[in-house]
Parts: sequence; structure tokens; C-alpha cells
Amino acid sequence: MKNQMMTYSINPIAFIHSPYKEKFTVPRQSGLNKVQSEIVFQFNNEEEKLRLRGLENFSHLWVTFIFHLIDEQKANEHNLTRPPRLGGNDKMGIYATRSPHRPNRIGLSLVKIHQINDHSISIIGGDFVDGTPVIDIKPYIPEYESIPHAKSGWLNNIESEHSLNEEYQVDFSLLPTNTLKNEEQETICEILKRDPRPSFKRKSVENDEEILGVYLLDYNVSFKINSVQKKVFILEIKANTP
Amino acid sequence: MKNQMMTYSINPIAFIHSPYKEKFTVPRQSGLNKVQSEIVFQFNNEEEKLRLRGLENFSHLWVTFIFHLIDEQKANEHNLTRPPRLGGNDKMGIYATRSPHRPNRIGLSLVKIHQINDHSISIIGGDFVDGTPVIDIKPYIPEYESIPHAKSGWLNNIESEHSLNEEYQVDFSLLPTNTLKNEEQETICEILKRDPRPSFKRKSVENDEEILGVYLLDYNVSFKINSVQKKVFILEIKANTP
Repeated sequence: MKNQMMTYSINPIAFIHSPYKEKFTVPRQSGLNKVQSEIVFQFNNEEEKLRLRGLENFSHLWVTFIFHLIDEQKANEHNLTRPPRLGGNDKMGIYATRSPHRPNRIGLSLVKIHQINDHSISIIGGDFVDGTPVIDIKPYIPEYESIPHAKSGWLNNIESEHSLNEEYQVDFSLLPTNTLKNEEQETICEILKRDPRPSFKRKSVENDEEILGVYLLDYNVSFKINSVQKKVFILEIKANTP
Repeated sequence: MKNQMMTYSINPIAFIHSPYKEKFTVPRQSGLNKVQSEIVFQFNNEEEKLRLRGLENFSHLWVTFIFHLIDEQKANEHNLTRPPRLGGNDKMGIYATRSPHRPNRIGLSLVKIHQINDHSISIIGGDFVDGTPVIDIKPYIPEYESIPHAKSGWLNNIESEHSLNEEYQVDFSLLPTNTLKNEEQETICEILKRDPRPSFKRKSVENDEEILGVYLLDYNVSFKINSVQKKVFILEIKANTP
């Protein structure tokens, strides 16, 4: 048994193209949403396309990635974290959570395969911010990896009808003009219908009047949330020009 | 969308202690066996032990690791591989398999949690060679990760009673003297009862007379296989002295 304390150099094999342009709106758990993203591979030559052969007829894919927007130094210093599903009240060890604030900043998400192309895979249900570096993908094998009665520790204690899963209605009627394409409007709905505010902001109705801004698709989107009416009001949509 | 082609430095958070002292005997899929291993953490201070808080009452754990015995350069050059489950007859793209010969050499295994200690977790069902560097662990969340009806592509085409799962009887009666402890003998049984030979060697009865040697626990174990009787005969067990 040799414990070589060596460092491994990991190079991205692909990058994610997604409508989530900043961390704020990314869902806390993959699989909950219907948002489409692309895994775009960095093949060095035409033969490397063969690496995707045989992925047809798999329905689900594991994506291993780097939470690249998390500060590396700080990630290494975290021992405990407040999981959003506990309403920010309780601290858990980072290895008992899926928190991005963890040594090596490695993420693991299960996504649905939508379509396999020559240099990319289109996926559904990812929780990746645009530009996320992918370091591996593997097929999901239900024979070994589906364990319906596995015990899920502290997650078992959470009421199933938790507010994180609750869907709000997204209202575009306050927009002076609406020039969004249908699929753009659907993506914005899909992303904002689950109150994207951090849990400590959700608790109080006072925060409902606050005007929030997010960068989604190619737009800066302003909105406010009414948690009594369970509505998200879109106030302004402006092209994000670099 | 910024595709920074940067390299990420990954440091092991733990190392595996396991009875598999060489690649040869490591099972091709985790979860099939009852072999116990330990994830031994490299905590820098006493507070880092808190990272495991909350893992109690999870039954299963994802272990992300590096296939450190695979040559890094060669791993990067692989596009296709012959999965053992296809009897070595057919080639699949590496991303459609769990092959260790893949860019970044990243492995992902689902294991059972046996016991959580201060600086280690004892696990069951791992497919790790002794000394494997672990780069992340995460709790298994059946709510999102158990998808019993997921489609498993080319794996669906394989007969379920495949020889990889077939168990042989392990016979110690040819040993001149047997000084193994009970649990040592059980571990050797558990590891050798599934014919550990590569698939091309299994096909022919001619290979049955060959005397094979493996390094398991602290022993060099010699054995031969009779695939007609479905028996593994242990011939000699010697302490492996470095």
C-alpha cells in the first residue's frame, strides 16, 4: 500500500453550453428540471469522435465536472455546509452533501440523453452553469446503480413537499414588449418557476418587493417574486451585450 | 461561454486499503462482491473530521477515484475498447463504457457503507486496487439517482446469466498446510470465486492447466482453475515479504 501524495492533472474533455449564465439560477439538484444543455467535446482529431460510439440507447448519463466558479482555495477549507434543503438551519459535513464547496470542486450529475451528435451530446436536466468544464462522462447502468431503497440519511427527515420543488407561475404580462421566441420564453419559465433565491431570502415576504436581475440565455432578465401569489413577475428583458 | 483550456490540479482526499494488491483480481464492476475495503482519509487537522458528519444513515456512497495504475499517456489515446461483458468481441467508444482506459483515468463506483469511523469509512463491494487515490465521495440519493427503467444501451443485449457473474467453488484441500485465518480464507474465496482470468483465456479448457499467481491480502496465492468442474484449486499460499 503506497500512499503517494501526488497531484493529478485533469484536462477538460468537454464544456457545457447552457442557458444558466451565472451561478445564481442554477438548480440545486440535477434531474428536477427540463432545461436543455449541450456537452460540447474538445476532440483533437476526427478519430476521437469514436469515443461516443455505443452511447445510443442509453437513456441517462453521468457527468463528472469541475465547479469552476467556486474559489479553489476556499473550497478546500470547508468542513461543514448548510444544505439548502435544510433551510439553511443545520450544518452537515461536506462529504455528506452535494455542495460545490468541497476539496477538488468535483461535481457529479445524472442527466437524460436527448440526442447524440458528432461532437456533442444534447442533455436534459443538467445543473451546470454555462462554460462548466466536463472531466468525464459515463453511461448510467441501472443494473448496478438503481437502488430504490437505499437509505438517504438526513435527507429522509425532510418533508417531501419541500418549497424547493414548489413551482411558481412565471408572468410575462408586465413586460412593455415581449420579443422573446417561444423556446426562449419556455426556458426562462423553466428556470425561474422554482424560486431561485437562497433559502434565507425566501422566508420573509419583505423580500418580495426586491427587484432581482439574472443573466439567462443572451438576456439580462429583471423580475420580482410574490411568494403569496406564488408568482414570478418578469419586469424587463434586455440583450446582454458584452 | 468561455472555454478555458486550463488544467485542474486534483489532490487525493483519501486512499483505499483493499485486499486487491494488483489489477488482475479486481472485479470489473463494483457492487457484485462482498469484499470489504477502507477509505482512509488524509485529514490535515482534527477539524477536517467534521467533513464526515451527517453520513450516518446513508447506506450507499459514490466514490470518485483515479485509476492510478493505468498509464496516463496511453489512457488518453484510447478511443475504442473491448468491454469484458461482450467477451472481447466488440468494440465500444470509451465514453459508452466504464473502462479505466479513458482520458483523465477517472473512476466512479457505488459502494455500500459498512461503518463510519473517525478517519476512515469501511465499505463493501468496491472494485479498487490497494492504494487507489480517492478524489471525492458523495452520498447516494435514491430520490434522484435510482432510475430502475433507464435504458442501458448495448448492455441490454447481453444474456443476464453471463459467465462474469458465475460463481466457482474455491477449494483449499490441495494446500499442504492451511494457516489462514477464517476471514482471510473468506476474502480469498470471495475474490477468486469469480474466474478472474481475462475473457479470452476463459474460452478454452486448455487454459485450465495453467498455474496462476496473484498477490492478495499479504499473500502470494497460486491456483489453477477447472472450468468444467467449476472449481478454483488453491495450490500454494506464501507470505508476500517486500
